[in-house]
Amino acid sequence: MSSKRKQLAIQDYVDGIKANDRTILARAITLIESHANGHLEEAQKVLTEILPFAGESIRVGITGVPGAGKSTLIETLGLHLIEKGHRVAVLAVDPSSSVTGGSILGDKTRMEKLAQNENSFIRPSPSSGALGGVARKTRETILLFEAAGYDIILVETIGVGQSEITVRSMVDCFILLQIAGGGDELQGLKRGVVEIADMIYITKADGDNLQRAEAAKKDFAAAVHYLTSATEGWRTVVATCSSLTGAGIDSVWKNVEDFQRAAQKNGIFSTRRNQQAKDWVHSIVSEYLGDSFRKNPKVLRVLEKLEADVVEGKLPATSAARKLIEAFES
Amino acid sequence: MSSKRKQLAIQDYVDGIKANDRTILARAITLIESHANGHLEEAQKVLTEILPFAGESIRVGITGVPGAGKSTLIETLGLHLIEKGHRVAVLAVDPSSSVTGGSILGDKTRMEKLAQNENSFIRPSPSSGALGGVARKTRETILLFEAAGYDIILVETIGVGQSEITVRSMVDCFILLQIAGGGDELQGLKRGVVEIADMIYITKADGDNLQRAEAAKKDFAAAVHYLTSATEGWRTVVATCSSLTGAGIDSVWKNVEDFQRAAQKNGIFSTRRNQQAKDWVHSIVSEYLGDSFRKNPKVLRVLEKLEADVVEGKLPATSAARKLIEAFES
Repeated sequence: MSSKRKQLAIQDYVDGIKANDRTILARAITLIESHANGHLEEAQKVLTEILPFAGESIRVGITGVPGAGKSTLIETLGLHLIEKGHRVAVLAVDPSSSVTGGSILGDKTRMEKLAQNENSFIRPSPSSGALGGVARKTRETILLFEAAGYDIILVETIGVGQSEITVRSMVDCFILLQIAGGGDELQGLKRGVVEIADMIYITKADGDNLQRAEAAKKDFAAAVHYLTSATEGWRTVVATCSSLTGAGIDSVWKNVEDFQRAAQKNGIFSTRRNQQAKDWVHSIVSEYLGDSFRKNPKVLRVLEKLEADVVEGKLPATSAARKLIEAFES
Repeated sequence: MSSKRKQLAIQDYVDGIKANDRTILARAITLIESHANGHLEEAQKVLTEILPFAGESIRVGITGVPGAGKSTLIETLGLHLIEKGHRVAVLAVDPSSSVTGGSILGDKTRMEKLAQNENSFIRPSPSSGALGGVARKTRETILLFEAAGYDIILVETIGVGQSEITVRSMVDCFILLQIAGGGDELQGLKRGVVEIADMIYITKADGDNLQRAEAAKKDFAAAVHYLTSATEGWRTVVATCSSLTGAGIDSVWKNVEDFQRAAQKNGIFSTRRNQQAKDWVHSIVSEYLGDSFRKNPKVLRVLEKLEADVVEGKLPATSAARKLIEAFES
């Protein structure tokens, strides 16, 4: 590739995306991820143009601790789906990547066959810091992929902070991958994740591990029995699979399709997408408001002292809050 | 009581509260709950004065669906604690009370013996609408009770919206009461509640119900096995009790004391209280910011149209958010 790349006009981006020109698609994603001056404006213009062509896909979130077999499952599943005529985009949300200096998710070298397939597109996590920023970029990238004709969007994430909740808020269906261990190893599953999952798959259910996987499946089934399901009208699936033997892999997608059918039938599918879109607007606004508050020099001048006074029992919280608001509005 | 009550000066409130004058305590709570002009100012002055005398208590949240036996347990437990020399305040957080036209929680008629005891004070939920407001009032009322020498604060709530999360954010220890039913009746436990509980008590473990309660206990124990405990260093307790036979009631408080000892030893107790105080300040601020945004006439003029455009795919969410922020700041 030449280092002097031709400037693209908005229409070049739009045409290129709609024609699934991989180079232009990649540049459009880069534009969305860019912090450079004027790029936000330009990216929003591209998005406005491609929006009418976006939305025609199923968006599936996949989470699990490192070692749960996310990459392996995604590769196996992705190739299987492409064989059936689908086009598959894989994105990642990894807010830790700015700390570790590089994304550990959506790593192409870990999904080599899928990465080389022309009907797939793998995009690692945007490396910028805050989860809010990563989320915006990922959401907008999903729209680009859809406009380019990818009908299956897989969003990979990992249990860091709020990242699962964030991914849940941008997908239709959410899958938790879990490895079976010996009893206590299973402890410490992050709170909240089981509850937002539409499916829980115990991975690596093969060989020596098969029995433990089946036991874990039973335990998880008992656990979800006590929770409202994540999606109205859909009973959380608990099952096992193995990317090694292929057992259960078919069932993953069969379940996603069943889920989609059920959610479309009872209207949850579109209701959720509409709600997600509105929530997204409001989360950008509230992030902005919070940011401008936290960065306000007048607030910063008094914040630490006021917080300390509250903690030490010198000042009621409501009074401290009022002083902060006065500082902000002065 | 005379309808013409003597005006109280700040110092009258402070002295009365510290002397545990029940009439003045009740009037101070009414002051905190008041929406009248100038009352917020006055309440904050009273709070500032009594703050140095607050904090010496254990704050325990108790939740459960209607019928789980909250009132009965609180009465039995409260009388038991008073017998042991404690002073017990019972508060309620019920954001639904403004809808139902009256609080169903902290109802004195359901805790008749406890209500008549001079070492207890039962206060129903503030009836004002929004959860944020109810939460502020309840938090501030806790401080009044502590300054009046109540060393045990029980905060009762019910699974409505975010109320359990709100109560969790103002107490040291959180107990979920659950009734055993036949299999499917147990389904639909609100998501998230199991995960914020330090103890789960299966109530009404007596007579015909004993076996079902034991079975439910086993199932819950299996479920919590998969979750990080709500408090670092404390393994969520799952147990049964019966207010009818008294079985297990002793263990409730024994567990709370064990919890307190453990949390004080590893520092979580004070760390959590400090964090709660800081979070409280910021939640007031962010509620205020969100409110002033939502009520801004310039925002209101464009909000509905922008939301519709986003939902219909005519406008990217980021663009809509920017337009809203521009309207707000114009």
